[in-house]
Amino acid sequence: MNEEARNMLPTVNARIYPRGGLDVLSRAEVARLRDASSGGMHDLLRRCALAVLTSGSASDDPRAAQELYPDFDIQVLQQDRGVRIDLHHAPAMAFVDGEIIRGVAELLFAVVRDLAYTAIELNERDLDTGDAITDAVFGLLRNARVLHPTEPNLVVCWGGHSIGRDEYLYTKQVGYELGLRGLDICTGCGPGAMKGPMKGATIAHAKQRRRTMRYIGITEPGIIAAESPNPIVNHLVIMPDIEKRLEAFVRMGHGIIVFPGGVGTAEEILYLLGILLREENADLPFPLILTGPTAAAPYFEQIDQFLRLTLGEAATSRYEIIVGDPVKAAKRMAAGVRKVKDYRIAQKDSFFFNWAMKVPLEFQKPFVPTHEAMAALDLHHGRKPHALAADLRRAFSGIVAGNVKEDGMRRVEQHGPFEIHGDRDMMDALDGLLRAFVEQRRMKIAGEYRPCYRVVT
Amino acid sequence: MNEEARNMLPTVNARIYPRGGLDVLSRAEVARLRDASSGGMHDLLRRCALAVLTSGSASDDPRAAQELYPDFDIQVLQQDRGVRIDLHHAPAMAFVDGEIIRGVAELLFAVVRDLAYTAIELNERDLDTGDAITDAVFGLLRNARVLHPTEPNLVVCWGGHSIGRDEYLYTKQVGYELGLRGLDICTGCGPGAMKGPMKGATIAHAKQRRRTMRYIGITEPGIIAAESPNPIVNHLVIMPDIEKRLEAFVRMGHGIIVFPGGVGTAEEILYLLGILLREENADLPFPLILTGPTAAAPYFEQIDQFLRLTLGEAATSRYEIIVGDPVKAAKRMAAGVRKVKDYRIAQKDSFFFNWAMKVPLEFQKPFVPTHEAMAALDLHHGRKPHALAADLRRAFSGIVAGNVKEDGMRRVEQHGPFEIHGDRDMMDALDGLLRAFVEQRRMKIAGEYRPCYRVVT
Amino acid sequence: MNEEARNMLPTVNARIYPRGGLDVLSRAEVARLRDASSGGMHDLLRRCALAVLTSGSASDDPRAAQELYPDFDIQVLQQDRGVRIDLHHAPAMAFVDGEIIRGVAELLFAVVRDLAYTAIELNERDLDTGDAITDAVFGLLRNARVLHPTEPNLVVCWGGHSIGRDEYLYTKQVGYELGLRGLDICTGCGPGAMKGPMKGATIAHAKQRRRTMRYIGITEPGIIAAESPNPIVNHLVIMPDIEKRLEAFVRMGHGIIVFPGGVGTAEEILYLLGILLREENADLPFPLILTGPTAAAPYFEQIDQFLRLTLGEAATSRYEIIVGDPVKAAKRMAAGVRKVKDYRIAQKDSFFFNWAMKVPLEFQKPFVPTHEAMAALDLHHGRKPHALAADLRRAFSGIVAGNVKEDGMRRVEQHGPFEIHGDRDMMDALDGLLRAFVEQRRMKIAGEYRPCYRVVT
Amino acid sequence: MNEEARNMLPTVNARIYPRGGLDVLSRAEVARLRDASSGGMHDLLRRCALAVLTSGSASDDPRAAQELYPDFDIQVLQQDRGVRIDLHHAPAMAFVDGEIIRGVAELLFAVVRDLAYTAIELNERDLDTGDAITDAVFGLLRNARVLHPTEPNLVVCWGGHSIGRDEYLYTKQVGYELGLRGLDICTGCGPGAMKGPMKGATIAHAKQRRRTMRYIGITEPGIIAAESPNPIVNHLVIMPDIEKRLEAFVRMGHGIIVFPGGVGTAEEILYLLGILLREENADLPFPLILTGPTAAAPYFEQIDQFLRLTLGEAATSRYEIIVGDPVKAAKRMAAGVRKVKDYRIAQKDSFFFNWAMKVPLEFQKPFVPTHEAMAALDLHHGRKPHALAADLRRAFSGIVAGNVKEDGMRRVEQHGPFEIHGDRDMMDALDGLLRAFVEQRRMKIAGEYRPCYRVVT
Repeated sequence: MNEEARNMLPTVNARIYPRGGLDVLSRAEVARLRDASSGGMHDLLRRCALAVLTSGSASDDPRAAQELYPDFDIQVLQQDRGVRIDLHHAPAMAFVDGEIIRGVAELLFAVVRDLAYTAIELNERDLDTGDAITDAVFGLLRNARVLHPTEPNLVVCWGGHSIGRDEYLYTKQVGYELGLRGLDICTGCGPGAMKGPMKGATIAHAKQRRRTMRYIGITEPGIIAAESPNPIVNHLVIMPDIEKRLEAFVRMGHGIIVFPGGVGTAEEILYLLGILLREENADLPFPLILTGPTAAAPYFEQIDQFLRLTLGEAATSRYEIIVGDPVKAAKRMAAGVRKVKDYRIAQKDSFFFNWAMKVPLEFQKPFVPTHEAMAALDLHHGRKPHALAADLRRAFSGIVAGNVKEDGMRRVEQHGPFEIHGDRDMMDALDGLLRAFVEQRRMKIAGEYRPCYRVVT
Repeated sequence: MNEEARNMLPTVNARIYPRGGLDVLSRAEVARLRDASSGGMHDLLRRCALAVLTSGSASDDPRAAQELYPDFDIQVLQQDRGVRIDLHHAPAMAFVDGEIIRGVAELLFAVVRDLAYTAIELNERDLDTGDAITDAVFGLLRNARVLHPTEPNLVVCWGGHSIGRDEYLYTKQVGYELGLRGLDICTGCGPGAMKGPMKGATIAHAKQRRRTMRYIGITEPGIIAAESPNPIVNHLVIMPDIEKRLEAFVRMGHGIIVFPGGVGTAEEILYLLGILLREENADLPFPLILTGPTAAAPYFEQIDQFLRLTLGEAATSRYEIIVGDPVKAAKRMAAGVRKVKDYRIAQKDSFFFNWAMKVPLEFQKPFVPTHEAMAALDLHHGRKPHALAADLRRAFSGIVAGNVKEDGMRRVEQHGPFEIHGDRDMMDALDGLLRAFVEQRRMKIAGEYRPCYRVVT
Repeated sequence: MNEEARNMLPTVNARIYPRGGLDVLSRAEVARLRDASSGGMHDLLRRCALAVLTSGSASDDPRAAQELYPDFDIQVLQQDRGVRIDLHHAPAMAFVDGEIIRGVAELLFAVVRDLAYTAIELNERDLDTGDAITDAVFGLLRNARVLHPTEPNLVVCWGGHSIGRDEYLYTKQVGYELGLRGLDICTGCGPGAMKGPMKGATIAHAKQRRRTMRYIGITEPGIIAAESPNPIVNHLVIMPDIEKRLEAFVRMGHGIIVFPGGVGTAEEILYLLGILLREENADLPFPLILTGPTAAAPYFEQIDQFLRLTLGEAATSRYEIIVGDPVKAAKRMAAGVRKVKDYRIAQKDSFFFNWAMKVPLEFQKPFVPTHEAMAALDLHHGRKPHALAADLRRAFSGIVAGNVKEDGMRRVEQHGPFEIHGDRDMMDALDGLLRAFVEQRRMKIAGEYRPCYRVVT
Repeated sequence: MNEEARNMLPTVNARIYPRGGLDVLSRAEVARLRDASSGGMHDLLRRCALAVLTSGSASDDPRAAQELYPDFDIQVLQQDRGVRIDLHHAPAMAFVDGEIIRGVAELLFAVVRDLAYTAIELNERDLDTGDAITDAVFGLLRNARVLHPTEPNLVVCWGGHSIGRDEYLYTKQVGYELGLRGLDICTGCGPGAMKGPMKGATIAHAKQRRRTMRYIGITEPGIIAAESPNPIVNHLVIMPDIEKRLEAFVRMGHGIIVFPGGVGTAEEILYLLGILLREENADLPFPLILTGPTAAAPYFEQIDQFLRLTLGEAATSRYEIIVGDPVKAAKRMAAGVRKVKDYRIAQKDSFFFNWAMKVPLEFQKPFVPTHEAMAALDLHHGRKPHALAADLRRAFSGIVAGNVKEDGMRRVEQHGPFEIHGDRDMMDALDGLLRAFVEQRRMKIAGEYRPCYRVVT
């Protein structure tokens, strides 16, 4: 885009005052917020704010917004009364006749709130133990005011952000059926499978005359620019990293629906199964439904076969695959959520946070796919399913990195393919799964697919 | 559809109890309601109820629902506590897991409420004078609880129910821009241009975090089956005939937007101009905006030319044509509504009902296009624009009837073409307009277009 | 009061605009309201409005307000927008810094609303049958928006308006205990036993954090000036006469508590027993509790003896006497109301209006105590209890009139004492009861008590 | 009270679950709460809880409740779901038919909340600087959810807890007039002048149909047992000591009304003037009204004379004395609060916390009246009024202690009277004031009044 076109993109300067959440701060808190937002947190804040201000725009190119609004800036200012946000050269699309759209302002304050909480509150804590990390996740969610002692009804929906039209329509239908049954929706807050269920639920909630419904979007700083919150999200939470984001999903959600997606989605399934298959979690009800339109049947079959082969038949007790039947998917989820409620009541566990689920520390700490880490994986039959699931997820993550992520690709170029120690049949299955993703265009590959790993059996 | 297929359509038997509106009735009222609903009003009630129960279904064939659910029946029953509605073989699509969708139940009670009001209350009144008819319109609307002393913000949207995709998307965009500006929507409550603006406004209202928004659908018994309420309508009103329905639109609405439509839409424009061009209404602010996507420009040009030729340049002061610019259309409407508000305050007129507008009795009484009535029209230059507009609307109505309505076609077959007394240029323009509608497929014609009238100059 | 003092009483001129209820009227309705309020209804309106505007003032002299504010006037005016009320020389005590107290404005509009309904709506109806009268009562109450389909919880409290301090404190305690149990209060809306229960309930409702509580005052034009609504009343209804007022109490209330009172209270007990003892009402649960402080024990004993003697032991099954125990009184009432609820559900009767209770026409039509009417009473043992109760109530009413009411006293002076045909023991008991009231100062007598009747056995 | 009587006092065992505030806690928080409440904080919690559970009882003897319910105990228990409170042998008066009164339960959770905040949160902080103390006050109030960004309307009422009936009725009238003007009330939450204004405001708020009104009681652990919250308090806050309690009053309140009281009230006036007379606070609007019934005129005259003599005429600009005129008092307060609002807007200061007021550290730290501290006071003319006010308050506090407080009396017995260095006229005035309090029975003295100090001039 040349300079002239850029100049024509309309922008607005504005001052915004908060409502709720940031409206009763102490002087010291305001000062820390101002310092943090003009210091190390500033660039992050600027990028996240821009994502919110362009919410609903068509592009999914993370850099697009940055290039379209190069002069955009945001400042958090102190005044005795509290906090004020000054926007400079902000996208005009977030405004109507000079006034910011109220929902956008709310999301904007959510960004400030969560980045500040991370920079100020979490910065002071030791996050070395599992309990400390879980407590940080809890603290962020409570501070975002998304924890309420209401009836369990929150369904997390996972799936790809760039899916086909048929698959998108299917996610809408499932959302509609969930909404008709009084269920709220939580997703990763971008487009595709993260938007469809919310959109369907909106229509259903309107038909059922619900007044307070939650469309919760949980994102992270690294992803929000690429997947700016869709306009339906009415609660936005920014977790500091993918591990805390995943933990937020599984502790807040009363059930999870997985729509077709790319490799990321497959990873998420392994993450969740790695937790659910642990003995400590064996009695914990947790509805997990894999569903998509009829055309997506092969996708789920392949995943199913892979899971059976690697984790054993027992793993299949933890999920259900439903193809081409939104009503059935919603009914099963509603039934599953009822069981979760009964269990929580029996265990006197809270409705709003799944304290009882054991999430092992290795799932809370990020996995960095070095050659050493990859070589240390132990992908052989005979291990406990949950341990194998954890290592499979890591292998998966590493292979993906080696194929498409900058860091991983560089490592492979420098040191050659990763060496993975595993049983041959498992490795074949993994390979087959990845090739299928490429064929189904669920994985972006430049040029021909070349495996970045080598199996040592 | 054969018997077997029919048997497969799922149905439900249910008992429904009212909330609001019908929940505090006297014993005598309940008895009259029961009698009316099992007597003369029963068939009407059955058809309207079926339309509501299939709300949102794809078909626009009025007979489809009747044929798909031949065994459907509805009974209004008295029990001491109040009213109960029994549904037999009702479409399963209105239910979720055996319970009726709450919004559908509300619409169902709206049907009973309005048909009962018409059959019981209005039946007892003399409706010979203009004031009595206006009072009946007011009574029905108040009984439907859609009159509130809130800020003027109700925009009526007119337009075709079967429009092209581009035109439909445009109506959504306009609705979105209206919604961003805090405006509510009122339409004829079917698909197409009657659904698009509501859908757009829904998204905008959600973004602006509005809590109580009105999507008012005003329909009539003859049309509800063909144009079943779209699922967004949250207030449904059934007026007894087209004249009272039109009066409800112009007295409740604080402004009107006209999207492209068929001949019906053109008639509506003439109806409204016939009122607005009267001297008594000269000072009354009433924003009237004709708008559509760029491709619809020729449609509006033709209408504009026709209005200029027949009603004179002065008529153009009463409407504005905006092409391909939803933001501008919404801004102008918002500005117009503000003027309406100022005027009502200055005149101490109510916000919720436009008492000050003079609607002449001939607009309130139905026009039946007989050969005598058509011959009595006086379409010559030199008449007052509002009188000419009224006769043009009648001519228009008669010609349409002669072309496509059963009654009118039969009359023309028996007695030959209508004779219309008018100036040649006006007649030519009328003819041109109709031919254009045919070409643009806005008017359904079986076979070649043959004028059903003869000009006597 | 001399002219000078009068001039010093501060007054205010003000214009009031309605909220709710009177805010969506048709032009015709506004015109009828204006006409009625400036015509025959005007003096009544003026007096009732003055009572409301001096609500909470200490005096219970009906003429006091009239004399204190001789120049007060009220006008109901039409403007297109709706209704406006103009007050001239209105008591300043109803205003704060020039603005009318919001609750007073609500009561003022209640006055206009109910007098207008009576003058306009009821004026057009034949009220010759019991059903028609009941329907009028229902119509007035619904129009006053006090009928809601909520849980049965309305306790009517009857009792004297000028009771001793101990008795007043006792009514507060009972109200407090009722309020703690989630019960709402309905009374005749003046001071004494009509204010105490509301005041006690207010504190209890605050402690239980109830948000929407009803303190309903049902009055009549002839009494409102003497018993101006106490400040706690948040729903005021003006019934046209005492018979409709009594019917409103028994059809709206889910139970009745009777505190000590004068002869009026005794009459009310007989009215209610006359209804409850009819065979048609035999199965109808209706808690009736007579209660007062320990010092009031003799009062209730005497009434109890009289009822046993005249109506038989069976009559005692319809009421319970509780002395000096507010908690027990409230518990029994709460239990009774639960039974009423169960019965209504079983019978599918409405929660908000006791349709199932049969109120005979002779209780709905006023009794005028002429010599003929009194001579026609049949007070002998052996009659059905309900019939006897009805005649006893009439005898009672006539004797009271002969003693203290202007009309009755004049009749007795002209024609000598009433002749009453009855059994000697019943007559003696009646006489004893009246003498006790005089001794306990519950009945105002000028000079020595002389019976105004003669028994013919 | 002997054992038998004690056994007859009815008690209840109950389990209470929180709503709001304590309902979304982390596991760690619940554990800390449980530990604190069973550890050092337990006895305090037990006493405060008992005060709340006997709220509204007649006695003001702090030990009465302890003796009447010797077996009462409270435990805060952890369960995964959150917090549960177990009550053993709790006063039955807090329950209705076995269920705790909802308002009492709220106050009970307020006790747990505030004691826990003090024991857990504040315990970890350094409270050496003025800012730190102010921040602690802010933190406690915010945690108690009494800080809201609403219109300034909070009037603090100070005055004696055991005042005469006339004075009590006057406080009710003032509260009524404040309530009519939309003002909320904050007091020390006991009886007398702390209850009257709330009671009056309750009636006024009801008449003005206000829905959300605040009756805030701010107390401290040492005083709550003697002055158990009156039943109208709907927000209870327990500050850890008198200094933080006073700071909470002056930072939350938008104006202060002082009713007649004992020496404590005189101290409070000096505390506030000591702050308001500082130069940094010179421009700060802060309405301070001293008011009482006509009979209280001498009380205020004496205080006024004392203030003029000691602090100079200029001090009188900071307060207004209004005698026997509740309407005027309320009007002036309303006007003062409007000025506060304008000032906050101009200064962009928050509405809910008076950050701009400078409270010097010596007012935040407790004054312990030793002989050294008393001898160090500097009560001579010529000092800055605010400095003199501060020392006067201390002198006052010490003299009171020497007369009636256990610690002070012991010190005086051991070391002889305090030596105070001051100008003779000031000392005489102080002496006169105290003697007057004794005469007016506003100060409890056993035996004859003997000064506990000696003036050194």
